[in-house]
Amino acid sequence: MCRWLAYTGSPVVIAEALYAPAHSLIDQSLHARLGAETTNGDGFGIGWYDAEPGPGVFRSIEPAWNDDNLRELAGHIRSHLFFAHIRAAIGSAVQQTNCHPFRHGRWLFMHNGYIGGFHTIKRSLALAVAESLYPDIKGQTDTELLFNLALTFGLEDDPPSAVAQAIGLVEACGREHGIEDPFQGTIATSDGERLWAFRYSSEGKSRSLFFSRDIRALRALYPDRPILEQLSDDARLVVSEPIGDLPGAWIEVPEASYVVAGEGEGELRPFSVTPPASSAATRARS
Amino acid sequence: MCRWLAYTGSPVVIAEALYAPAHSLIDQSLHARLGAETTNGDGFGIGWYDAEPGPGVFRSIEPAWNDDNLRELAGHIRSHLFFAHIRAAIGSAVQQTNCHPFRHGRWLFMHNGYIGGFHTIKRSLALAVAESLYPDIKGQTDTELLFNLALTFGLEDDPPSAVAQAIGLVEACGREHGIEDPFQGTIATSDGERLWAFRYSSEGKSRSLFFSRDIRALRALYPDRPILEQLSDDARLVVSEPIGDLPGAWIEVPEASYVVAGEGEGELRPFSVTPPASSAATRARS
Amino acid sequence: MCRWLAYTGSPVVIAEALYAPAHSLIDQSLHARLGAETTNGDGFGIGWYDAEPGPGVFRSIEPAWNDDNLRELAGHIRSHLFFAHIRAAIGSAVQQTNCHPFRHGRWLFMHNGYIGGFHTIKRSLALAVAESLYPDIKGQTDTELLFNLALTFGLEDDPPSAVAQAIGLVEACGREHGIEDPFQGTIATSDGERLWAFRYSSEGKSRSLFFSRDIRALRALYPDRPILEQLSDDARLVVSEPIGDLPGAWIEVPEASYVVAGEGEGELRPFSVTPPASSAATRARS
Amino acid sequence: MCRWLAYTGSPVVIAEALYAPAHSLIDQSLHARLGAETTNGDGFGIGWYDAEPGPGVFRSIEPAWNDDNLRELAGHIRSHLFFAHIRAAIGSAVQQTNCHPFRHGRWLFMHNGYIGGFHTIKRSLALAVAESLYPDIKGQTDTELLFNLALTFGLEDDPPSAVAQAIGLVEACGREHGIEDPFQGTIATSDGERLWAFRYSSEGKSRSLFFSRDIRALRALYPDRPILEQLSDDARLVVSEPIGDLPGAWIEVPEASYVVAGEGEGELRPFSVTPPASSAATRARS
Repeated sequence: MCRWLAYTGSPVVIAEALYAPAHSLIDQSLHARLGAETTNGDGFGIGWYDAEPGPGVFRSIEPAWNDDNLRELAGHIRSHLFFAHIRAAIGSAVQQTNCHPFRHGRWLFMHNGYIGGFHTIKRSLALAVAESLYPDIKGQTDTELLFNLALTFGLEDDPPSAVAQAIGLVEACGREHGIEDPFQGTIATSDGERLWAFRYSSEGKSRSLFFSRDIRALRALYPDRPILEQLSDDARLVVSEPIGDLPGAWIEVPEASYVVAGEGEGELRPFSVTPPASSAATRARS
Repeated sequence: MCRWLAYTGSPVVIAEALYAPAHSLIDQSLHARLGAETTNGDGFGIGWYDAEPGPGVFRSIEPAWNDDNLRELAGHIRSHLFFAHIRAAIGSAVQQTNCHPFRHGRWLFMHNGYIGGFHTIKRSLALAVAESLYPDIKGQTDTELLFNLALTFGLEDDPPSAVAQAIGLVEACGREHGIEDPFQGTIATSDGERLWAFRYSSEGKSRSLFFSRDIRALRALYPDRPILEQLSDDARLVVSEPIGDLPGAWIEVPEASYVVAGEGEGELRPFSVTPPASSAATRARS
Repeated sequence: MCRWLAYTGSPVVIAEALYAPAHSLIDQSLHARLGAETTNGDGFGIGWYDAEPGPGVFRSIEPAWNDDNLRELAGHIRSHLFFAHIRAAIGSAVQQTNCHPFRHGRWLFMHNGYIGGFHTIKRSLALAVAESLYPDIKGQTDTELLFNLALTFGLEDDPPSAVAQAIGLVEACGREHGIEDPFQGTIATSDGERLWAFRYSSEGKSRSLFFSRDIRALRALYPDRPILEQLSDDARLVVSEPIGDLPGAWIEVPEASYVVAGEGEGELRPFSVTPPASSAATRARS
Repeated sequence: MCRWLAYTGSPVVIAEALYAPAHSLIDQSLHARLGAETTNGDGFGIGWYDAEPGPGVFRSIEPAWNDDNLRELAGHIRSHLFFAHIRAAIGSAVQQTNCHPFRHGRWLFMHNGYIGGFHTIKRSLALAVAESLYPDIKGQTDTELLFNLALTFGLEDDPPSAVAQAIGLVEACGREHGIEDPFQGTIATSDGERLWAFRYSSEGKSRSLFFSRDIRALRALYPDRPILEQLSDDARLVVSEPIGDLPGAWIEVPEASYVVAGEGEGELRPFSVTPPASSAATRARS
């Protein structure tokens, strides 16, 4: 179980989203309210886009609440699109290669939740990853494998379709092995221009996910908050648990839906998984 | 705020005290019940006596709950007297030199609590440390300074007297600087033969401390617990918060008192601090 | 490139082998003479057998030369059979799950060298690992994969045969992919009773390996060395690079041979790899 | 013994100075040529100025050569003035609070060298630090203490004078205690606008220090190097050991002199220490 945050909008210093708000993500590393675990102290990571060619990633195995380097970097890095993730490990080692966000080229990917019965179906899922991607898997997590499955299914071309296929394969594999609820979670991914955030679980009771209301509406509600004046009209936060102290600021992302935000966009759409075509299922089963 | 445990008795594998009991110290690193903080994730340490000349110390900045090395070592080290400490940092860095237990020669020392207004009186207290000890202070904590004050006041000869003088100096210094409650906490120290555990605070509302009941009495209460058969008659645990699932196993150490255990001993005594004689106070003030 | 040491004989404090000798393994972490790299600062590990059911393992990502915990533990752990390894990473992350020795049940395994073209053949080799072992692979290293191949081929029943088959598969896979020299290195493995140490490379120019001369012979050569009096007659050290200052103490393990030591044994035998039978090769290719 | 680098000039991505040049600082972490030690693997740090109010600092206890986070950050942080330091610890712990650069307000400070007999005179020097600064000393190093002495002597107003007084006090204290050569080293400090780099030792044989030649002169020498076109006319590097492959690019900073660079300045000046006035010496001796 983990907590995460994704931002897109006018460039801000990351600390403003990470440390400043009431019940901030850093505070949630010690005292999450809506999570399956109250403590998310098994490492963290941030990923951000700036003027350089690809995203930067900073990951650490320290708890976020006591990491001086995170505080320093968050206070100096400005970004128009960034991810932050705090981890509560379930089973896999606390090491940087297991920390989110994961990166491939220009893409970042992070997740709160799990693949059910992962130990049982790990090998089958790994075999379904494109051969060219397999050797670059660096850690042990279900999330990194899911990311590689999504890449295999075309994440870079059509994120919602690729995530739908990746989860579809996880569900098919899991059910073949008698796992009742093979997937649980919320996922965020980005190419640096837009971000996509998914909420879905096999059992239909997914981890929480929230989406910030349109900034123009928030400014009307809270005319005396200078931070809202600084943000661009299309700024959006997606969070696994609300931060800050502005009632009415958050829209719950419904079950089985996703958010796309950035480049003027900002909307909710329904999400359904795509079961593997027979050939792909065969491949995963082999 | 921290949690700690000290054991003396027949040699046991440390894991039996650290991981095995219900609501173990490792469990308390995530979910303390009686502490000022529920999470004690800012590093940990163990110190143990065995056949080698001095005690061994293993300290880490990882949270105890996810440290594989601690699990390994605790499962392999047998000791007749050991300390374990999990830390919740208040202000000072998460680094090994700030982790308890601290060591000097054959002596170990650990603490749950704080010196009030430490920033204000740190220099005065440091000046009161023996000149020969000062350069070996390695970290930034109030506890390490307190240990060095106790060593300065003769810890190696008479622990209760030295601790009483050290806290007495802290209180005198603190009150000179207008600090209302200069000392808070529980302290354990040992030379490998006996252990002393103190409960005291300037305000008279000290951090919790518990002492295990006489093993013979426990055996009578719980005739079906094999672990109690294995322990020697004089085995004792002192803990900041009860562990295990045996009602009646724990005696609360009263306010302003201390436990001495080991070598057949095991008793509670009253504790009062010793205000500095004028010369020492002057020295600390200079 | 790495350096390692394996000991079997009468129980000794690990520090006596690790820190005390001239040009010790710890010294080699900064200044190796015979290695491909002079610095082995990318983590380390020790594994030891004692009275507990399985071996203990302590691994860290710090350089061995500056790790206080290693110094503490090595000074307190007594063992009749232990491994120590210092790492110079080539490509894979510096994380505990990539540090040697690796463990499975009662078995330890460590390696100095590499699988050539590992990125190219990693997936093929991973597919040849027994399905029951695959999900427990924790790190990214060629060594851990090799260990799992050896386990697949029966390491627990016949170590030389299993290692010969594992390397045979690596060579077959590598050559199918046009890799000229697929395997290079020295390997140590143990079940806590005996240890096996292999020296082999596809090109016939293997990493160095040395075996300590019979203790009785050494005592005759050096009658004034008390350490030799303390060691049992069957004590043996196997090292990637000689330690200590006793000329004549070391026998170079020849190319394509292995040492078996422990339980009174201590001898050199020839080693040759076993090419995969067609079925196994097919399986790895699939 | 350590290695360091300081840059001032037009904003560049830190990686261009840290990783790109031949014999870069990162390369020197494994293979220094001019240093007292060839390996500088006991942690590192960078400090940089940007648009935010104070400098950012990123410090780690990993060797610089294998730290993924350093590589990420260096590839994303642009700065007009930054410091980088790789550490070879002599005696003090490998922990972030002992890593350079140190910071106070807008000021950064780093050092290659040592205070001779530091253990002996540490307390005396600590007593000479301004009372308001003392409690914020976080680590154990001679350098952090020297920085605090320089701050005590007015670093923020007149860096050369303050450094001269700080070293003067070190020399006086040392000599009182029979230490022959109390100070050795090179020092860099900055307020974000200019940087000062000092070369001095009590014995007159100081650690090496080099200053990059005027960029206009370098452009004339190397008309085909695009990097030189990108740099502003006043860009300067100060390094403990030359980097890159441009003969003639470096001017050795002579014994007992200092460089001031930035804001159009860039020159060498003589440096001599200031012995403590009797009152200050008395204060340090008390």
